[in-house]
Amino acid sequence: METNEYFVSRRSIRRFKECDVDAQLLKNILSKAMHAPTTGNMQLYSVIVTRDADMRSKLAAAHFSQPASVGARVLLTFCVDFNRFEKWCELRNAKVDYSDFQSFMMGVLDTALFAQQFVTLAELSGLGTCYLGTTTYNAPQIAELLKLPRKVVPLTTVAVGWPAEQPADCGRLPVEAISHDETYCDYSADDIDRLYAVKEARDDSRKFVEENGKDTLAQVFTEVRYVPETLKHFSKVYRDFIESVGIDI
Amino acid sequence: METNEYFVSRRSIRRFKECDVDAQLLKNILSKAMHAPTTGNMQLYSVIVTRDADMRSKLAAAHFSQPASVGARVLLTFCVDFNRFEKWCELRNAKVDYSDFQSFMMGVLDTALFAQQFVTLAELSGLGTCYLGTTTYNAPQIAELLKLPRKVVPLTTVAVGWPAEQPADCGRLPVEAISHDETYCDYSADDIDRLYAVKEARDDSRKFVEENGKDTLAQVFTEVRYVPETLKHFSKVYRDFIESVGIDI
Repeated sequence: METNEYFVSRRSIRRFKECDVDAQLLKNILSKAMHAPTTGNMQLYSVIVTRDADMRSKLAAAHFSQPASVGARVLLTFCVDFNRFEKWCELRNAKVDYSDFQSFMMGVLDTALFAQQFVTLAELSGLGTCYLGTTTYNAPQIAELLKLPRKVVPLTTVAVGWPAEQPADCGRLPVEAISHDETYCDYSADDIDRLYAVKEARDDSRKFVEENGKDTLAQVFTEVRYVPETLKHFSKVYRDFIESVGIDI
Repeated sequence: METNEYFVSRRSIRRFKECDVDAQLLKNILSKAMHAPTTGNMQLYSVIVTRDADMRSKLAAAHFSQPASVGARVLLTFCVDFNRFEKWCELRNAKVDYSDFQSFMMGVLDTALFAQQFVTLAELSGLGTCYLGTTTYNAPQIAELLKLPRKVVPLTTVAVGWPAEQPADCGRLPVEAISHDETYCDYSADDIDRLYAVKEARDDSRKFVEENGKDTLAQVFTEVRYVPETLKHFSKVYRDFIESVGIDI
């Protein structure tokens, strides 16, 4: 497949074949992905590679047993990591405690960019991947399972395996919806109607609304998928966890 | 260039040629980059494209006039955006106010993954790019310049132009330094010495230490580049700004 074609035809994969992902292949991909941009070349991240079936099943439970977490042959937990960098500093007579919000955000960006570079390279190798957003929800359990030390925070997980499905395009907004020239051009009601029209008219969107017994697609998001009360609960859990490992955001 | 070779040979570019970046090319790249993974296909981001010379120079000032911000022909400010999504929800009888830490983190990941996909595609097209980490420092000034509304938070900026330099490889840690099998294997002093040895022995590292009048490379980070007091100051600035636009992290 042409590289440029790959970028528009890529899909997240949630069903995987029952065959292994070679450890060396994975290591090569991680090696290449490390060339993603970082903040000052600090590489404020670590990745924990879970291949063991028992560990995978325990980790999947922390991801609410969502299909991609259960069926993947490998789970990669990408973490913000100040532990390694600060250990290096301490041994080099530069003792420091990066425990503020800006430091955390540097780590978050380093980690996210590295994860995305990994995903692109894995998918270009024919592997299927799916991000598990539940990593920030159950960070305390995940940290315990993976024996994460102080100053290491799970940020996102990528489920990896050989694809056993070819999902249809899930659709995106038109580029005009997300891009602004020179200054932010706020959206009128007409703009919103126009920009969301194609998304709302899709068969899968209509089915989604019907299956969930709602009137609009937006209600499926706010009342079923991303309920404010749930997000508030897990916000406290994640914030408390981050504080407990020594970062005061 | 082979795609796989690109991923290891890519470099951030800070010096650009005096020639324009075609608007349609940029739009095509953004269009493709939107196929990056997102949280539930919500696309919680916007990008502000700054081409106007006067606006660029004002924006560069907010980035402390670092060379990449001054010399780039285009600056793309990638923002976490709940404004568009919530406007859509409100118009569809699903009024919601995503103002918690988990929501913010969903937006941050959506935005970072989109930005990185943009960077990869831009670089594959021959363009040079450089992330400006100062976006989170001077978010209030940037938001004012770009007329960002409530619930929109600048996260990172990508400077874009045609490369006028070919920087040498800046080096990364060996993959063993950042990858852990099954559980996190904490670093002994010997591990740190071994894993940082190549980085510390590099000519540019030694020069960096000398130029800054320090004893170790780590001290250049903690005493010159990423000083805890400065980070603490800008942490409060960014946190206050985020709160002021209606997100309570």
